[in-house]
Amino acid sequence: MKKCLIKKEICEPNSLCSPSAYGKSFSRGIKITAGPTAFIFLSGTASIDKKGNTYKPFNFPAQIKRTFDNLTALLKSEGATWSDVIKTECFLKSMKYYKEFNIFRNSFYKKHALKVFPASFCIETNLCRRDLLIEISLLAITKK
Amino acid sequence: MKKCLIKKEICEPNSLCSPSAYGKSFSRGIKITAGPTAFIFLSGTASIDKKGNTYKPFNFPAQIKRTFDNLTALLKSEGATWSDVIKTECFLKSMKYYKEFNIFRNSFYKKHALKVFPASFCIETNLCRRDLLIEISLLAITKK
Amino acid sequence: MKKCLIKKEICEPNSLCSPSAYGKSFSRGIKITAGPTAFIFLSGTASIDKKGNTYKPFNFPAQIKRTFDNLTALLKSEGATWSDVIKTECFLKSMKYYKEFNIFRNSFYKKHALKVFPASFCIETNLCRRDLLIEISLLAITKK
Repeated sequence: MKKCLIKKEICEPNSLCSPSAYGKSFSRGIKITAGPTAFIFLSGTASIDKKGNTYKPFNFPAQIKRTFDNLTALLKSEGATWSDVIKTECFLKSMKYYKEFNIFRNSFYKKHALKVFPASFCIETNLCRRDLLIEISLLAITKK
Repeated sequence: MKKCLIKKEICEPNSLCSPSAYGKSFSRGIKITAGPTAFIFLSGTASIDKKGNTYKPFNFPAQIKRTFDNLTALLKSEGATWSDVIKTECFLKSMKYYKEFNIFRNSFYKKHALKVFPASFCIETNLCRRDLLIEISLLAITKK
Repeated sequence: MKKCLIKKEICEPNSLCSPSAYGKSFSRGIKITAGPTAFIFLSGTASIDKKGNTYKPFNFPAQIKRTFDNLTALLKSEGATWSDVIKTECFLKSMKYYKEFNIFRNSFYKKHALKVFPASFCIETNLCRRDLLIEISLLAITKK
């Protein structure tokens, strides 16, 4: 039973570098396996490139695509997909992007053939960099 | 063991319609059953009526009641109660409502005879509609 | 199997009083034990003292230290450490504190010899008291 809890850092350097590369003490995500169940917690993820720079500053259409692509890559690195996502926590720099956010998300989930949409909240907040317009954190749950 | 993870959309159309009814790709909640434990994640829930309209725009006393009633209905649809709630994530349009929020919550939990209060955070943020003043997301955990 | 879900309020009165002491209906944290796994949910925790007063109003360096110390005390009261923390939810009154927040956190996690950093998000928001500058909520997962 000693192995009943296995904790692992999630990273996907082909998409976005580790936060430690620019002096931040958090992981892109944590996978914790408790018995037959794996919980995948992804950090607030934004439009960041491989080098840790903002990808397309102040450009909402480009940033939302990059954000979802980064999340997809992080999920994939652990063998998970959007169908495993249970809850998303969405942060928009301004609610003026809310309509565009929904149009993109509708289309993205359709493309990924989601049968059940995740639970979610979406709020307005300033993010850690002024040029970031969207950030999403999520939880996925899968079988080990 | 194939059945060890069962995922289900939560809805309660007698209280509030599915977000898909107005073009939004999220679920009111997700219940995920992992072995003997069920995790109930409810989305950010606000003062929404059966047709997806804002119930009592800009009216805090009416909205907080409706918000808690909607959450109660969603919990009940899965056989859960407020005693199963582990954590609430509370969003207020303005901290000027914080005092009233606490008075209502104290009274609501008293009425529901909670022995242990949930963990919680409460922050100030603009919500997805200008006329919404409060939104709450929560996690409940129950036996299957 | 009746005992498969055990729920417990977390408190650490030597560091910070129960929110019920000042009329708030939430717990400092909830520990829920599901089979061999314990989930520790800590509420949004700020620079609060034993009597429920703000410790060092408007003083960011003092408040961040107190906040992390309060979280540490709450974790310790359940036999947990920062190495068990899976995700932090960080709220700053202003992003002007973000740099200082990171410097402190880097140093704090180094001192606690973390091998894997938690997942995390950090957003800007007004908190429940005007004199509070930082608040952190977290999830830790441990073996029972």
